[in-house]
Amino acid sequence: MVAPLRIALAGLGTVGAGVIRVLETNGALIARRAGRPIEIVAVSARDRSRDRGVDLSAYAWEDDMSRLAARADVDVVVELVGGADGPALALARGALAAGKGLVTANKAMIAHHGLELAQAAEDAGVALRFEAAVAGGIPVIMGLREGAAANALSRLYGILNGTCNYILTTMEHTGRDFAEVLSEAQALGYAEADPTFDIDGIDAAHKLAILAAIGFGAQIDFGAVETEGIGRLKAADFAQAAELGYVIRLIGLADCDEDADGARRLFQRVQPYLVPRGHPLAAVDGATNAVVIEGNFAGRLLFQGAGAGAGPTASAVVADLIAIARGQAGTPFSVPAAELEPVPPAGAGHRRNRAYLRFTVTDRPGVLAEISAAMRDAGVSIESLIQQGRPEEGGEVLIAMVTHEGPESAVSAALALLEGSPSLTEPPLVMRLLG
Amino acid sequence: MVAPLRIALAGLGTVGAGVIRVLETNGALIARRAGRPIEIVAVSARDRSRDRGVDLSAYAWEDDMSRLAARADVDVVVELVGGADGPALALARGALAAGKGLVTANKAMIAHHGLELAQAAEDAGVALRFEAAVAGGIPVIMGLREGAAANALSRLYGILNGTCNYILTTMEHTGRDFAEVLSEAQALGYAEADPTFDIDGIDAAHKLAILAAIGFGAQIDFGAVETEGIGRLKAADFAQAAELGYVIRLIGLADCDEDADGARRLFQRVQPYLVPRGHPLAAVDGATNAVVIEGNFAGRLLFQGAGAGAGPTASAVVADLIAIARGQAGTPFSVPAAELEPVPPAGAGHRRNRAYLRFTVTDRPGVLAEISAAMRDAGVSIESLIQQGRPEEGGEVLIAMVTHEGPESAVSAALALLEGSPSLTEPPLVMRLLG
Repeated sequence: MVAPLRIALAGLGTVGAGVIRVLETNGALIARRAGRPIEIVAVSARDRSRDRGVDLSAYAWEDDMSRLAARADVDVVVELVGGADGPALALARGALAAGKGLVTANKAMIAHHGLELAQAAEDAGVALRFEAAVAGGIPVIMGLREGAAANALSRLYGILNGTCNYILTTMEHTGRDFAEVLSEAQALGYAEADPTFDIDGIDAAHKLAILAAIGFGAQIDFGAVETEGIGRLKAADFAQAAELGYVIRLIGLADCDEDADGARRLFQRVQPYLVPRGHPLAAVDGATNAVVIEGNFAGRLLFQGAGAGAGPTASAVVADLIAIARGQAGTPFSVPAAELEPVPPAGAGHRRNRAYLRFTVTDRPGVLAEISAAMRDAGVSIESLIQQGRPEEGGEVLIAMVTHEGPESAVSAALALLEGSPSLTEPPLVMRLLG
Repeated sequence: MVAPLRIALAGLGTVGAGVIRVLETNGALIARRAGRPIEIVAVSARDRSRDRGVDLSAYAWEDDMSRLAARADVDVVVELVGGADGPALALARGALAAGKGLVTANKAMIAHHGLELAQAAEDAGVALRFEAAVAGGIPVIMGLREGAAANALSRLYGILNGTCNYILTTMEHTGRDFAEVLSEAQALGYAEADPTFDIDGIDAAHKLAILAAIGFGAQIDFGAVETEGIGRLKAADFAQAAELGYVIRLIGLADCDEDADGARRLFQRVQPYLVPRGHPLAAVDGATNAVVIEGNFAGRLLFQGAGAGAGPTASAVVADLIAIARGQAGTPFSVPAAELEPVPPAGAGHRRNRAYLRFTVTDRPGVLAEISAAMRDAGVSIESLIQQGRPEEGGEVLIAMVTHEGPESAVSAALALLEGSPSLTEPPLVMRLLG
């Protein structure tokens, strides 16, 4: 048998314990597939005494996580600490600088520092892999780097946050409001005590930025992701979407087109979308994730599965370790880091879409005329209109409409005309229809 | 730039021409991702003069396909001729024996000779890859070999034949009968003039046998796939399935369990199944393929996309070439060929299922009592019964039922009791419910 791949684990939360469990349970099978055993040599976490349901006695313990990178008996450091900066980033830099491979599930760190880390890994001639950072157990990074490698992509998009999808599909099925469903999701463990990262779309934006960089050969640009969360959705939006034949999903979407002057522009958006009922993403329920890759030869490829959880995420971490053990790690972003292009963000204005617009208005005459006039003056053509007759609490009425396809700038102009109108009791909500 | 990967193409049908088109259209992108260009050096096909819509003038032409394997300027032979044996197999053996890598889309050849070819490739230290042989453009072999590599699989199953899925979903949507929809599919190019391989399930069985070998580390055993086609389905079956909340899909399914004596047994079946409407495979429409892999940590992974066609299949062929160009080809069946175990087939008898049974009977009193008695005597418990009251042409009546979960042997015993009964105008149809 060839020498084992010796790994060190930093972070022993649910995913870290999951990695230990995968290697314990499937170790013999993994060794056959990898061509050699994968052995945990050392571990580190904040609290040594905590019961994690796994036996740590066979592994060296380091109180100081950064020392894992210095150990001569370690080939690959597995970083499962989390956080874009701080100890996770220090460990990642230290491991690569010491000539160790690095496997991480840390989407925030890769979204912010992926280019630097990839360059460091390539300079050191070691592996950097982060399959678990995007869509948990779904091998979508492999799908991009390998499965769809022969294709120029027209776009990629998907459901990248299980918490949001759980909340949205529960709202869809129960007709209940956001706050209530969020509380329940928190009680059930589907949402964090502080759910901001998830429900504001930031977690999905991290993942999207990583996928977009790989898919379009662009330097990762998390800051350019236009991000909107799900916190403003009302039960009425779901009812109205349903009436039109749509469901609501938080979609991360990226594409890369050429400007009039031939320069590439990267568009990245995370936003609730109306998804037509026949679309594969409309059938994605609960905490499941799914990613669609559209290639110029492969057509539409869909990857679907569990987007989070100890088992699925650990499965992805160990898949990366197996690739390293096989000597098949490759370059982190498919092309060498130095060849990733700095692609400026695309403005959304000239994008053409159908849009769902929802206005919360005071129940008085003339409001609909006011909104309609703004649409007309901005050149927005309305395809269908739903006015919810029964006032909500506080005498509010919802007016929802779907526009014909047109430039996003026209919708923005219409909303600008309505800004400050005393008829509107809150800012209008805009959702695009996934085409 | 590193030296190019030099390839020879055998077979210039739609897929072969597609490979040329992929390499022409996306060549620069592919070279960046692969780390070096992929260059076609030589081609061979039956008819040199045929117009394929691609320019062949830059490539050496070999009238005798087998000479591609002998060319010193070729690194990898791409076999797109087809057929389990004959020239394709001779070329494959010749290429590997000459120390060339081999990429093929030939599911029949791999299903019949995959073990021998994998052994030959490993002995020669060259790559053998066949992503395009299963599910067209969907990277499901990569999903098994790499994405799910950390998992022991409980089962894998999917929609592996686009022609059948097109026919079944058209029958579902239109309520028309098999023969009529098949003719239309042939006219539209979705089905071959001789559709036997597709509609009898043989093509799906080839693919299933390949996936099962990789997924379960078993020597490929195409002969053991229990195979049933879609030719006996009637419009009434779809109507009755719909009433019960199901659709009908041709499913290839494999699992691998241990016997009472601890020996592994491989179960492989291709058969029309009733799929519950909420299941992801129920939403797979038209010529699309989809494969589900159930892992002990990743959970349920779904891969979906175009299962055939020049573009998707060529995309998979070139993905394999990119992996070879990167030096990441690995072992063809995930574990070395010598470690693939000869796993005997599992008998279906003790498998527990719910089943849909459909009887075509003469319209006379006592028939239902006769069938019910056979069920009772064999210990089959009926969950629901639909008797279609209106006789079909020729005075036939359909009786359909769904059983409670029970052993398949009990259903077989019941049908044996009814064998030869003059009440039945054709053999009963059995479909399992996908659980």
